[in-house]
Amino acid sequence: MKISARNQLKGKVVEINKGATTAHVRIEVAGGAIVTASITNEAVDALGLTVGGDAYAVVKASDVMIAVD
Amino acid sequence: MKISARNQLKGKVVEINKGATTAHVRIEVAGGAIVTASITNEAVDALGLTVGGDAYAVVKASDVMIAVD
Amino acid sequence: MKISARNQLKGKVVEINKGATTAHVRIEVAGGAIVTASITNEAVDALGLTVGGDAYAVVKASDVMIAVD
Amino acid sequence: MKISARNQLKGKVVEINKGATTAHVRIEVAGGAIVTASITNEAVDALGLTVGGDAYAVVKASDVMIAVD
Amino acid sequence: MKISARNQLKGKVVEINKGATTAHVRIEVAGGAIVTASITNEAVDALGLTVGGDAYAVVKASDVMIAVD
Amino acid sequence: MKISARNQLKGKVVEINKGATTAHVRIEVAGGAIVTASITNEAVDALGLTVGGDAYAVVKASDVMIAVD
Repeated sequence: MKISARNQLKGKVVEINKGATTAHVRIEVAGGAIVTASITNEAVDALGLTVGGDAYAVVKASDVMIAVD
Repeated sequence: MKISARNQLKGKVVEINKGATTAHVRIEVAGGAIVTASITNEAVDALGLTVGGDAYAVVKASDVMIAVD
Repeated sequence: MKISARNQLKGKVVEINKGATTAHVRIEVAGGAIVTASITNEAVDALGLTVGGDAYAVVKASDVMIAVD
Repeated sequence: MKISARNQLKGKVVEINKGATTAHVRIEVAGGAIVTASITNEAVDALGLTVGGDAYAVVKASDVMIAVD
Repeated sequence: MKISARNQLKGKVVEINKGATTAHVRIEVAGGAIVTASITNEAVDALGLTVGGDAYAVVKASDVMIAVD
Repeated sequence: MKISARNQLKGKVVEINKGATTAHVRIEVAGGAIVTASITNEAVDALGLTVGGDAYAVVKASDVMIAVD
């Protein structure tokens, strides 16, 4: 499946923290930055995510803001 | 100003493309990935964004999805 | 690629309307409802979308609201 | 109240799963697809949602992505 | 229609700026703050929005961030 | 840090409710309206949010909808 979301950063899962319904998944992307995703517990299971596995952080362009110092 | 958005990727503006009301801004972040943001033309002006300038791509954790191959 | 977004509705592209930077794409999904997506012109080109082609409307669960009459 | 969100899919609530602060609500829409919404527990109560009740899944066009196989 | 979105700020439309596909609508809410919405041109027409008319700015709780100085 | 998000409503934190992973923070903004934000528990800690403290509710224009009665 190819998706319209313009941002697809390749990396490795470094942490999975499941809550009651919502999980936080951290991906270390190229360059060493950590990207945090808040997704459903159900999605964690459906994708079979595990710490150390390859994954992409995917973000729609309209959900990206720009900031300056 | 410190913001709750968990993802703040430092980089440089590599392209600004203004449309009628909506602009696309591309940031090259650490590791060389390009992040595309769709923001208002007005925000481009308010931040004084210019190609080559330093900037952050900022994303709320609830707007990040995870994908696997 | 498998994505964490919980909602992936299969359908056919019935309209593509490109603006200056932002396109509106309409998908007729099973049951006959029309789903409207606002995506970048660039994504329309990258996916090779054409009217009549098969496509999915994809939505992260945290972007779905519920309403009642 | 009429809302600008372009996507309003009519259906029936088939599941409500409350977490600590965030609930997952599933709506079966026309054509039989299940749409999952992640909303606040508070909103579930405010709307008086119950399994079997009529409801709409509502999504802003800028939150819809397109995918192709 | 009652919607799950927790934030519904009452006000008056003070500006409508239509682009090629995307419009910016500004609402002056109680207390005098101006809220800017980026919505489809089509939604502006469907709601019959006019400058000076009453309207609500509606935001899902998961789309609100918090910042501190 | 200056951010592209067009909506930055100043106010005071009136409630913080942490769940398993997701917190709900309420801000009373000018004019007396209450704005609810759903953010990560981690962000509450990183910003050092406390009830009674000054804070802004920040929303990207593309996440604001308009409604009429």
